[in-house]
Amino acid sequence: MKKLINGPLDVMRESLEGFAAAHSDILKASFDPVYVVRADAPVKGKVGIISGGGSGHEPMHGGFVGKGMLDAACPGQVFTSPSPDQMEAATAAVDGGAGVLHIVKNYTGDVMNFEMAAELCQANGIQVESVVINDDVAVKDSLYTAGRRGVGTTVLAEKICGAAAERGYDLARVTALGKKVNDHGRSMGMALTAGTVPAAGKPGFELGGGDIEMGVGIHGEPGRERMPLKPVKDLVAYMAEAVLGDLPFRGGDRVIAMVSGMGGTPPIELYIVYRELELILRERKITASRRLVGNYITSLDMAGCAITLLKADDELLSLWDDPVLTPALRWGI
Amino acid sequence: MKKLINGPLDVMRESLEGFAAAHSDILKASFDPVYVVRADAPVKGKVGIISGGGSGHEPMHGGFVGKGMLDAACPGQVFTSPSPDQMEAATAAVDGGAGVLHIVKNYTGDVMNFEMAAELCQANGIQVESVVINDDVAVKDSLYTAGRRGVGTTVLAEKICGAAAERGYDLARVTALGKKVNDHGRSMGMALTAGTVPAAGKPGFELGGGDIEMGVGIHGEPGRERMPLKPVKDLVAYMAEAVLGDLPFRGGDRVIAMVSGMGGTPPIELYIVYRELELILRERKITASRRLVGNYITSLDMAGCAITLLKADDELLSLWDDPVLTPALRWGI
Repeated sequence: MKKLINGPLDVMRESLEGFAAAHSDILKASFDPVYVVRADAPVKGKVGIISGGGSGHEPMHGGFVGKGMLDAACPGQVFTSPSPDQMEAATAAVDGGAGVLHIVKNYTGDVMNFEMAAELCQANGIQVESVVINDDVAVKDSLYTAGRRGVGTTVLAEKICGAAAERGYDLARVTALGKKVNDHGRSMGMALTAGTVPAAGKPGFELGGGDIEMGVGIHGEPGRERMPLKPVKDLVAYMAEAVLGDLPFRGGDRVIAMVSGMGGTPPIELYIVYRELELILRERKITASRRLVGNYITSLDMAGCAITLLKADDELLSLWDDPVLTPALRWGI
Repeated sequence: MKKLINGPLDVMRESLEGFAAAHSDILKASFDPVYVVRADAPVKGKVGIISGGGSGHEPMHGGFVGKGMLDAACPGQVFTSPSPDQMEAATAAVDGGAGVLHIVKNYTGDVMNFEMAAELCQANGIQVESVVINDDVAVKDSLYTAGRRGVGTTVLAEKICGAAAERGYDLARVTALGKKVNDHGRSMGMALTAGTVPAAGKPGFELGGGDIEMGVGIHGEPGRERMPLKPVKDLVAYMAEAVLGDLPFRGGDRVIAMVSGMGGTPPIELYIVYRELELILRERKITASRRLVGNYITSLDMAGCAITLLKADDELLSLWDDPVLTPALRWGI
């Protein structure tokens, strides 16, 4: 294992310390329990939005904390769910009196712990709603999931719900928007190589020299099939077919399109992936109205990528365009 | 070689096509000759700023084209200098009548071709000045370089000169600023693994299982020494010592600090690197006034990182804070 770390057990904490130091203009970190919260929280009268999950997927979620997006994020250890006490403390820290929305990726531990935290918060008089994201079309059940896994659509839901909260939408309306985004978003990923969990010290799965894992999960969970590496044109066609056919997306649709790297794949390759995706969309008369290409939801140092498409209407596009100021997404401010 | 590509010879062109499609709101691409240029070029009365170099270092330089930074960028094939005709065409495309500054990294081919392009442009009546960036403290001469290599300070020079040009500074003043940035910026990098040039199909150099290359160049050029992997604390101390001692930086200095990934290293590790760097700076009473942590100047899929420090005064910080709207850096707009 070759990583830029001190000890395997220090990774989450030290990375978070560096992150908080680098972005002290936008957010601050708590370490007992662990969460990051926007510097001006709680914002009085605004619905709070929090998310969380295992570390190793950066910039998700901490990188999306800031004005116009998340109020707080709870990172667990690498690939490990955060605990209810983290979520409870973060919820309390961002409650401005208008309630708090939990955006939860569909993994058993995350869902269970966020449910427990929501109950604790409600017992303390904070109104809490939840949206569970389950957008990964690759497989129905998976290693850590009943039903579909939650992946890239989470990023888009955090942006759009964050904008709505900033505009002053109430909790019911922000929650409904989160569900709408989940209903209209679909994703799928693939891996060229396996990522290495620091504490394990070796790659999370075996992937033969010339093979790829199509439909891989962000913790290295198995996907639809293992296949020999092909030209990127064929790989993107496979992913796009699965994603487009699932909703289904149709000619005339407008989409927000995201190509996210898995952590070990450089920008030069991600833009080739985006090119293939846009060619497919054009052929089907689907318009990529907004685009993100880069590392947004990663899997440690895994090489590979994922595509996410969100069918967008005027409301979603307008909220997407609202100003945002976070470490990983910023415009208009 | 496992990469998300079609053919090795299509990489530069297809990546650029995807890049131009993803960022059509900010820039447009020309393919004969190849360059990217901000959508509203030329800006009348404004000094134009262009840069260029081999592909494989994305987002540098194309990712820095846009309002408040570069007017155009000329990408060569992977790790190959762009040609004078690209630079000449890009210079003509951005000339708004106030002259054009070429920001050039110190590699023999880049320097030679930019000089040739400058002569051609001057013969056509366009005023051209150049700033050569040579900030890499690792080694004096290198595989493709007489003198020091140009690396991370290039990104900072492009931002600061871009802001100055946007403010209406004349060519002499923008050029002087570029030289000032180069004079006050220092960098050093290291590699955990070698990157693979697509057309070569195998890693650019051999790096034994447990070894790293300290002081590596962005094309995999040898650095100061090959050493066994150590805790990141020791690696950053080595790099920081070399960088800080060279200017030298002193207690009381303010700096713009950048930690750039080499392409294959994920954000979770880069923030651990930043944490170590900030601890060292604090110990020496140097203030990190502004920070960038992410993939800014990469070396294909190489795992590793580089640190850049720029000693900054009020003028440089003020220009740094000016609005910028490019694919890779954006704020205030």
